[in-house]
Amino acid sequence: MNGGTSDTPLEARWLRLIPSLVLGLAIWIAPVPQGVAPEGWHTLAVFAATILGLLLRPFAMASIVLLGILVLIVTGALGPTSKDALQTALTGFADTTVWLVVAAFLIAGAVVRTGLGRRIALGLVHKLGRSERGLAYGIGAAELVLAPVIPSNTARGGGILAPIVDSLCRSLGSEEERAGVSRYLVACGAHFNLVTAAMFLTAMAANPLVSEAAETIAGVQFGWAKWALGSIVPGLAAIALLPLLMERLVKPPKLDVSAARATAEAELAALGPMDRAEKILLATLGLLLLLWATGPLHGLHTTVVALLGIAVLLFTGAQRWRDMAGTWGAWDALVWLGGLVMMADHLRETGVIDWFANGAGAYASGLAPLSAALILAAVYFYSMYGFSMLTGHITAMAGAFIAVALAAGAPPLLSIALIAYFSNLCGCLTHYSTGPVVIYFGLGYHSVPDWFRIGFVVSLFHMVVWLGIGLPWWKLIGWW
Amino acid sequence: MNGGTSDTPLEARWLRLIPSLVLGLAIWIAPVPQGVAPEGWHTLAVFAATILGLLLRPFAMASIVLLGILVLIVTGALGPTSKDALQTALTGFADTTVWLVVAAFLIAGAVVRTGLGRRIALGLVHKLGRSERGLAYGIGAAELVLAPVIPSNTARGGGILAPIVDSLCRSLGSEEERAGVSRYLVACGAHFNLVTAAMFLTAMAANPLVSEAAETIAGVQFGWAKWALGSIVPGLAAIALLPLLMERLVKPPKLDVSAARATAEAELAALGPMDRAEKILLATLGLLLLLWATGPLHGLHTTVVALLGIAVLLFTGAQRWRDMAGTWGAWDALVWLGGLVMMADHLRETGVIDWFANGAGAYASGLAPLSAALILAAVYFYSMYGFSMLTGHITAMAGAFIAVALAAGAPPLLSIALIAYFSNLCGCLTHYSTGPVVIYFGLGYHSVPDWFRIGFVVSLFHMVVWLGIGLPWWKLIGWW
Repeated sequence: MNGGTSDTPLEARWLRLIPSLVLGLAIWIAPVPQGVAPEGWHTLAVFAATILGLLLRPFAMASIVLLGILVLIVTGALGPTSKDALQTALTGFADTTVWLVVAAFLIAGAVVRTGLGRRIALGLVHKLGRSERGLAYGIGAAELVLAPVIPSNTARGGGILAPIVDSLCRSLGSEEERAGVSRYLVACGAHFNLVTAAMFLTAMAANPLVSEAAETIAGVQFGWAKWALGSIVPGLAAIALLPLLMERLVKPPKLDVSAARATAEAELAALGPMDRAEKILLATLGLLLLLWATGPLHGLHTTVVALLGIAVLLFTGAQRWRDMAGTWGAWDALVWLGGLVMMADHLRETGVIDWFANGAGAYASGLAPLSAALILAAVYFYSMYGFSMLTGHITAMAGAFIAVALAAGAPPLLSIALIAYFSNLCGCLTHYSTGPVVIYFGLGYHSVPDWFRIGFVVSLFHMVVWLGIGLPWWKLIGWW
Repeated sequence: MNGGTSDTPLEARWLRLIPSLVLGLAIWIAPVPQGVAPEGWHTLAVFAATILGLLLRPFAMASIVLLGILVLIVTGALGPTSKDALQTALTGFADTTVWLVVAAFLIAGAVVRTGLGRRIALGLVHKLGRSERGLAYGIGAAELVLAPVIPSNTARGGGILAPIVDSLCRSLGSEEERAGVSRYLVACGAHFNLVTAAMFLTAMAANPLVSEAAETIAGVQFGWAKWALGSIVPGLAAIALLPLLMERLVKPPKLDVSAARATAEAELAALGPMDRAEKILLATLGLLLLLWATGPLHGLHTTVVALLGIAVLLFTGAQRWRDMAGTWGAWDALVWLGGLVMMADHLRETGVIDWFANGAGAYASGLAPLSAALILAAVYFYSMYGFSMLTGHITAMAGAFIAVALAAGAPPLLSIALIAYFSNLCGCLTHYSTGPVVIYFGLGYHSVPDWFRIGFVVSLFHMVVWLGIGLPWWKLIGWW
């Protein structure tokens, strides 16, 4: 979604910066509450302005975050001298979770460049696609397999799968004939992407912000293995049930889909046999998943495992460093994610989070602990109607909701898990929530009211699945 | 120079890793000296293996550094747990000087992409190129103007100037006719590149390693303004005198160079008028140089100034973030430079530097302070005969020589300045010392003995200029 606005005239983009500046200035000049350091309050002002900037998107995310960082440095909010402030400002770029995302992006670049991602997706669609429902499961299976190693849900859903779904649809006859099945497959593709994004720490670029918030605000480790452990049961249930729900919602006509399956087969054949680089990559991905899932056993940090995977690709000659370093998304994420993590850390260190949590927690403190967690999670979920970007929603709200849940006495792990998974699931609500949804919607098979109606029902479906199946599962593994 | 070896068969590249592994292992198993922590000794083993790897270059620099980092993490040399070790390993990626280089690379990318670098170079060559000597001064002036903002001397000399020099030469008639003048211009171009690389902290990617060593080993700030203050007088003298020396050495025949000048004019005309992006970039570069040179007055850190420059380019629409983030050299430098800086820091923290300096300093302690500085600097300079890469030479030797000079009682600032400037000037000695020299030599106008002969005389020339003019200048500004 970055730089997507660069066709807009510069004046219009500057105008769209104004609300950010006004918000930032308003907070800056407001009286500093007791218990909050002035630097913390000023950081809050810049943080709020930065998030609004991310949502209004007049410039690329990294540009806006860079501006925020510079304002914090120059105004002394991060330290007394320019050098002190700079050192604080750069801490996010040495963050272990930020580098997990960078490393995962570098690996994902290899999955895309070698064609392995496309091959896996086409293979699963071909394997499973004996019926409309089978095609849908093929798409879901591809999302599930690729999600842990492609941390840009846009690259995965929008870059790899949406083009495949589009070409499947096109092979199903005239525009009229295929309309119903296309509506079905496109809706499945978009909502699968959000489910898989929710399932793994490395399946969406902003997920580590939740993990960071869990550690810094609640002191709870919510790393790769724990994230996946909590999501695996409700996540697989959601993938299994989603096509069935979608059949009810979209009512696709029964159609012979063998043409679509043939298309997948032809595109697969066009890729030729797997080459050496792809085979090494496939083995490396397997190793990564194994080591990530077994982290608590061998003690290797998730990021170290990811870096090991990169080293394997480089020293086996499966990838050239020059190509890997050219993966601009990795460095883009380093800058915006590193900047946001630094700001969030600084908010905590300067007492802003405590102040907010104590204030907001007071409202929620009358509730029973479990009710507090559930109500907060639901509010967090449906507040996505007001956001145009999952990352902006997470940045703005995830830490705050975790802090409030803690202050209200809600079970910490449960609250974190709900916020973590809902952070992506809530993208179901609108057609403007995140890159791949925008792209799937843009294929043109759905009207806006249609997308909203399906999205709202899917949101209820997620409540049923993730609370109905998730809550007992999390109880079983001792999370509450 | 990265990835330049990827055409070599993989087995041959692995074989070239072996000397590194043997060296590392030998140090690792050697008895740990008193006063050095075992982690420090192991870091030294990996550091030495990494540097040898950089020199043998079987894989890209960043790949080798990444491998070194991973070995340090996995063996526990950086911390007891995988997470502790990772956090230490990543500190180099938050280093203020490393980010100066990253930022400078991002800006340099804009100078190349917009064509401004080429325009400046062609303009100066056209302006000054009324004679052979004038063409040489045009090339020198272009190097001087571009050096502070293009931190890859390969991108500057090899990417921008060498093609221009080559096309000037080609316009001077048949291969026979132009041979003499070409030899002259190419030699000037290559040696100018090294002088300008020596003059500014941001003129060569590994210069910050000297700055870092100065701060961590000697506790001396040797930042952008100080670096340039010390180099400006001897550096300008070297640029002014180099074409005269080269005339004596190469004895180019007198030729009418108006055809070369016309070529420059035609290529300049082909660039068309300056567009908005170039104008903004030019103004931004002026602002950067002004703020860098006046750092002590306004107190803004050099890196903060560079980041401000990037923000100006982004928010005026002169550059898109996507293009900037696609500058792979910036992220390449982040990884290899950040990794090396982290290792060097860790060597200091674990007592290795002190141990080495005390041991080696004993040999030099009989010398008068000034003699010690000069002899060490000369040894540092001519040791470059044994190195195939300026960066490898700096990484391996700069910190050690500064430490020894201090232990021998040599004046700190003077010793640092000599090491800093000689770090690039010493590239004159061979035809394999650094990227642009390889490229200029590769134009084919010089034999190897010819290049070595010229190089050796240029090395004496630098001794005369940088000691004869430099020493009095550094005395005047109180550096010794």
